[in-house]
Amino acid sequence: MKIWLIGAYGIVSTTAMIGAEAIKKGITSRIGLVSELPHFEGLERYAPFSFEFGGHEIRMLDNAYEAAKEHWELNRHFDREILEAVKEELESVVAKKGTALNCGSGIKELGDIKTLEDEGLSLAEIVLRIEEDIKSFADDETVVVNVASTEPLPRYSEEYHGSLEGFERMIDENRKEFASASMLYAYSALKLGLPYANFTPSCGSSIPALKELAEKNCVPHAGNDGKTGETMVKTTLAPMFAYRNMEIVGWMSYNILGDYDGKVLSARENKESKVLSKDKVLEKMLGYSPYSITEIQYFPSLADNKTAFDFIHFRGFLGKLMKFYFIWDAVDAIVAAPLILDIARFLLFAKKKGVKGVVRELAFFFKSPMDTSVINTHQQFEVLKEWYRKLREEI
Amino acid sequence: MKIWLIGAYGIVSTTAMIGAEAIKKGITSRIGLVSELPHFEGLERYAPFSFEFGGHEIRMLDNAYEAAKEHWELNRHFDREILEAVKEELESVVAKKGTALNCGSGIKELGDIKTLEDEGLSLAEIVLRIEEDIKSFADDETVVVNVASTEPLPRYSEEYHGSLEGFERMIDENRKEFASASMLYAYSALKLGLPYANFTPSCGSSIPALKELAEKNCVPHAGNDGKTGETMVKTTLAPMFAYRNMEIVGWMSYNILGDYDGKVLSARENKESKVLSKDKVLEKMLGYSPYSITEIQYFPSLADNKTAFDFIHFRGFLGKLMKFYFIWDAVDAIVAAPLILDIARFLLFAKKKGVKGVVRELAFFFKSPMDTSVINTHQQFEVLKEWYRKLREEI
Amino acid sequence: MKIWLIGAYGIVSTTAMIGAEAIKKGITSRIGLVSELPHFEGLERYAPFSFEFGGHEIRMLDNAYEAAKEHWELNRHFDREILEAVKEELESVVAKKGTALNCGSGIKELGDIKTLEDEGLSLAEIVLRIEEDIKSFADDETVVVNVASTEPLPRYSEEYHGSLEGFERMIDENRKEFASASMLYAYSALKLGLPYANFTPSCGSSIPALKELAEKNCVPHAGNDGKTGETMVKTTLAPMFAYRNMEIVGWMSYNILGDYDGKVLSARENKESKVLSKDKVLEKMLGYSPYSITEIQYFPSLADNKTAFDFIHFRGFLGKLMKFYFIWDAVDAIVAAPLILDIARFLLFAKKKGVKGVVRELAFFFKSPMDTSVINTHQQFEVLKEWYRKLREEI
Amino acid sequence: MKIWLIGAYGIVSTTAMIGAEAIKKGITSRIGLVSELPHFEGLERYAPFSFEFGGHEIRMLDNAYEAAKEHWELNRHFDREILEAVKEELESVVAKKGTALNCGSGIKELGDIKTLEDEGLSLAEIVLRIEEDIKSFADDETVVVNVASTEPLPRYSEEYHGSLEGFERMIDENRKEFASASMLYAYSALKLGLPYANFTPSCGSSIPALKELAEKNCVPHAGNDGKTGETMVKTTLAPMFAYRNMEIVGWMSYNILGDYDGKVLSARENKESKVLSKDKVLEKMLGYSPYSITEIQYFPSLADNKTAFDFIHFRGFLGKLMKFYFIWDAVDAIVAAPLILDIARFLLFAKKKGVKGVVRELAFFFKSPMDTSVINTHQQFEVLKEWYRKLREEI
Repeated sequence: MKIWLIGAYGIVSTTAMIGAEAIKKGITSRIGLVSELPHFEGLERYAPFSFEFGGHEIRMLDNAYEAAKEHWELNRHFDREILEAVKEELESVVAKKGTALNCGSGIKELGDIKTLEDEGLSLAEIVLRIEEDIKSFADDETVVVNVASTEPLPRYSEEYHGSLEGFERMIDENRKEFASASMLYAYSALKLGLPYANFTPSCGSSIPALKELAEKNCVPHAGNDGKTGETMVKTTLAPMFAYRNMEIVGWMSYNILGDYDGKVLSARENKESKVLSKDKVLEKMLGYSPYSITEIQYFPSLADNKTAFDFIHFRGFLGKLMKFYFIWDAVDAIVAAPLILDIARFLLFAKKKGVKGVVRELAFFFKSPMDTSVINTHQQFEVLKEWYRKLREEI
Repeated sequence: MKIWLIGAYGIVSTTAMIGAEAIKKGITSRIGLVSELPHFEGLERYAPFSFEFGGHEIRMLDNAYEAAKEHWELNRHFDREILEAVKEELESVVAKKGTALNCGSGIKELGDIKTLEDEGLSLAEIVLRIEEDIKSFADDETVVVNVASTEPLPRYSEEYHGSLEGFERMIDENRKEFASASMLYAYSALKLGLPYANFTPSCGSSIPALKELAEKNCVPHAGNDGKTGETMVKTTLAPMFAYRNMEIVGWMSYNILGDYDGKVLSARENKESKVLSKDKVLEKMLGYSPYSITEIQYFPSLADNKTAFDFIHFRGFLGKLMKFYFIWDAVDAIVAAPLILDIARFLLFAKKKGVKGVVRELAFFFKSPMDTSVINTHQQFEVLKEWYRKLREEI
Repeated sequence: MKIWLIGAYGIVSTTAMIGAEAIKKGITSRIGLVSELPHFEGLERYAPFSFEFGGHEIRMLDNAYEAAKEHWELNRHFDREILEAVKEELESVVAKKGTALNCGSGIKELGDIKTLEDEGLSLAEIVLRIEEDIKSFADDETVVVNVASTEPLPRYSEEYHGSLEGFERMIDENRKEFASASMLYAYSALKLGLPYANFTPSCGSSIPALKELAEKNCVPHAGNDGKTGETMVKTTLAPMFAYRNMEIVGWMSYNILGDYDGKVLSARENKESKVLSKDKVLEKMLGYSPYSITEIQYFPSLADNKTAFDFIHFRGFLGKLMKFYFIWDAVDAIVAAPLILDIARFLLFAKKKGVKGVVRELAFFFKSPMDTSVINTHQQFEVLKEWYRKLREEI
Repeated sequence: MKIWLIGAYGIVSTTAMIGAEAIKKGITSRIGLVSELPHFEGLERYAPFSFEFGGHEIRMLDNAYEAAKEHWELNRHFDREILEAVKEELESVVAKKGTALNCGSGIKELGDIKTLEDEGLSLAEIVLRIEEDIKSFADDETVVVNVASTEPLPRYSEEYHGSLEGFERMIDENRKEFASASMLYAYSALKLGLPYANFTPSCGSSIPALKELAEKNCVPHAGNDGKTGETMVKTTLAPMFAYRNMEIVGWMSYNILGDYDGKVLSARENKESKVLSKDKVLEKMLGYSPYSITEIQYFPSLADNKTAFDFIHFRGFLGKLMKFYFIWDAVDAIVAAPLILDIARFLLFAKKKGVKGVVRELAFFFKSPMDTSVINTHQQFEVLKEWYRKLREEI
């Protein structure tokens, strides 16, 4: 199958490519891949573990190998030997110039960037270019995954976002102030009939207009925001307190990271949307809102070694306050990258099984899953297994 | 309903009594009680939240209030006002002298102890006394819960433990070397038709002889070892790594505590059984055995503020090793005490619903649940809810 | 000796009073008091451990006992018995109404406050009232200590702050926009010849005008900002890395607290000054500036249990990056309160020994010690010991 | 200068060699080297930063490069490029076969080992071989450093260890049961007039017989047990509590590591001596003995990434108990290796300055410094600086 990556030279994208190729060559194991668990036996028939990669970018390096090497120098997140072993495959992945429309001032931190809008294109022209780029790569078994940096919260417009007709009018009228890069990518993918996954907190396909398009075109899509670190732990752990009827009175989540994403987030406007997507989580799981702090700060020496410090203040029997602390010390891209392959496979499976619209059963992979209130990681996993089992049995 | 507590003057027992009475008086909330969650609506009709307490002890204080005050002085685990408010109720709980047969040298740490065997009684006479004590208190709605300190691993004997006939022959032949206190209590309870819960890691009702007795007498029972701290977190968190197909390569669990239980555990022979009951947990959940350390050490200044330090070394995509740390800083009795009330209520409910033998659906409450391989906290909670829902609907 | 406390009903003040009285009654130990270490033998002769308390406040409760009880209810930071044992002594401490001039919007969080400026008084009238209040209490052996909440950074004016003449002109001209409460208190104390300690990060006596006054009136003074938590650990630990020639590449300091101070700090303008006083610390000790984060956030359920989470990223031999984490889980007032007594005693000792102006040898007690670059806690302690030893030997 | 390393193929030795050569080539910085701090300016004249290495080993690999590569594969503790850049230099270091006399059963964990005693040599013959090996390498500017694995506590004998005459009689009488490898190495070095440093907790030169020899031969020596991890933090941090007159009521130190040293320590008899050398530390610094736990456990996946978990329970004003936690996550060899170079340089400096016997001013580098009670890291550093400054000024 094929995967088209928005943000193709980012650390998550390149790590996914490297892993995919290294596994094919048998030089690394399938650890980290949800889709390779025994529960998902048979998926191989619908979405074989063999990938071809393409994508859009705004940092115009020579190819994915150059990007991967750059990330590796900063992070040493796997053995150098692996990088060299897949050099050829990655060199053949050359991204197309993309859009960063209304992606905030944070993206300036990415260094020298080039975008379609810099060429003076209108919305309609940008969309056309994106579609042409994707079409030149895609086949029937292609999935589009957005792993670009977080955009600021877009300015919601009922007129332009509320219906497909309105959205297309926005394009025609070139109302750039209401569009954002992730919307345009999602629009293009869904229009082309390609499943779309929104791995970032950006709005992507989550506006009514694009949900309508997905339904209309019978395409499955999923999002938002890959659940890869502190939120994964939070949504695993908070239920424990709920099951035992202990009250969480405060939850501090303090995240530090030093990668491109961290640079982008450190620009205040982009930060807002990341912090928001985390805050709702506890309330949804617990039914009440403990006092909570969720902060993300840039810490350059960590590079992609995103570290989370959490403190949970909870009340037990007889009103006693007690404490729980955890430290999550992991490499974000290492946790995220295999999920890109997993999600792409599950979306292709869904498409082949005739699933259309939001695949809420993929909530397991997302911090802010669309159209579902299932936030508990355990329940999400059960839902995913059950969904797969049932669909697979269908003819 | 009535609860007969083995170890009635221990901190878990007295905290349970205080909480039960304080809730009845409306001076504290129901936080910490699983049986009060909305999922278990209707339980009140079978097992009303109103308790009478009795029990056995080997530390011969005047009454449960004296014991509670002693624990409170060391732990300040709730407001002093609450203790005073329930003084009268606790003063009326006066424990009977119990047995500590083969409970190891650790119990000497409890101070001045008095036991039935000190009177020179034979096994048959001890059992008789225990039964008479319980009978003088119990009614049809009574449950026996063992919250005494951990015993050493008993010397298993197929002859005497393998069948009810053998067990009773052991009593007749006065083969004390094969008996342990927890067995004798469990035997007495089940013989009297009273549900029995084994909240300690001691063997209790888990030998074939006593399982046979429970089946024969149509009594429900459950155990072993209340899941109250580090193991509760472990069985909540480890599944997350499994769901994401990440490999746990090492798990360090280091526990320190300073209460009577800590003193008893610090005597090596008793320690063995505690450490064993924890070690199987990871293997059962993961299907493989990561390198693991589980240690419990005495740390006097903490009293019952049992603190756990855990370090998880895990491997993700592309073989990358990553780290997770947690600190659990809680008061053991505060977490444990409400479960005593919960378990008693669920066992009474089970009895009324005609359930007999091991109630494996109560696994949620135990570190080493009998006759089940469901160790994942979330699955256990689902099992409990489903069990309750179904039984409740039965007429 | 006597201590006049600015912020007399705050948790630090009341805890200091309670400790002082409880020690005198022999119902608690002298733990936590630096001045009671063997190194400072003989201090008793100059500044006996026997205190009378008075002070200014803007929360107009009945007396210090009422305030102490309020703090105790939230914090349970010592045994209730102690509070009751010193009730009478604390009831006799009734604070005078003070000023909160330019103390920021944060102080509104303190609830119902009453200030001299609310009465429509001019600067000159405010100063007069403050002086009269202090004079009515003070004797020759009185020290003034400011433990009020953090003020915002004042607007520095060379004209009005740069010289004593200018400062007094500011008062005469009633230029309130250049004055702040802490300055006015410091001015009054020094004018009356009373040693002044500035335990808050507010500017207090640190402007040139007031340093001039202290020199002129031959009064010793010290500040700023009591070193009680994370900074104390930081200034103890950072030298270790320096001694070993290891490079600190990043230091994250994340503090959460839930007391009045936390409420005040959460108002952004007041926060600035707290964060600034912490940031300089590493640079002064290391000679270079690692990337550092210092944040303080409000976390209500912790009350005064100020908790710090620190992460140190450091580089060793061969360029290897390594990690250090610490959690400081203490009650701020418990660490701070004895220092109030210590500082007052050392300042009285200094006065009796003829010391005037900034006592830089008291740097040990402060986060931002005036007029010294000695920030390393160990060096500060050596300096303090040596200063005491030498002065004591002088006749 | 030249350094003769006992345990020349261990990770500390090879890391020291690699660092020394890489710094000479300018491909890494001098971070981690105490002797390169500005305080020790001028040391270069006595002990230039240019080293030649030799040593004894019991694991008979081809050369130090082979050993270094083995350690690197497990630990990736520096960039692979550095290893390759110094390949030639390390290949030229070929260790001589050494002794492991009475080194405990733990050393079997090192794999295939070869020792002089296996050849059936007597004590006198072993010593002769060691001396010949060293003599064939050493010049006037050579220092011997023992970085071999921890030996079990030796059986102390007043007769054979109490005087040089007795020690030499032990050799003559071939009383192997009283000798240990580290003693024999120390004896040989000191007899040859070469300064000796004992970086392991083994007894080395600390017995009276060898102290006598050092004095007689006018050789400086130092030890024991390099202060590289948790103890370094402990001796930096504990003073803070003491300065503030806060009582440490309990200190838990839990260390896990997965290297050869960990394997050796996991054999109980060797463990004893490691744990002992840590336990005395707190008492010496505080003047009282808090309840303390010091444990070291083997944790294979960490390799040399020795990790320490410490919990400090302390009491402040008004008797309040408070908590401090730290996690030290570092690579032991990275912290230790530069100290080998530092100690060798300072010992050569000492020799040139005519210092003989135990150099207690080098306590800064050791967990159990000989003949001194200065344990506080800060005091040790001051002592080191002062010692250097004074000696340097002498002609």
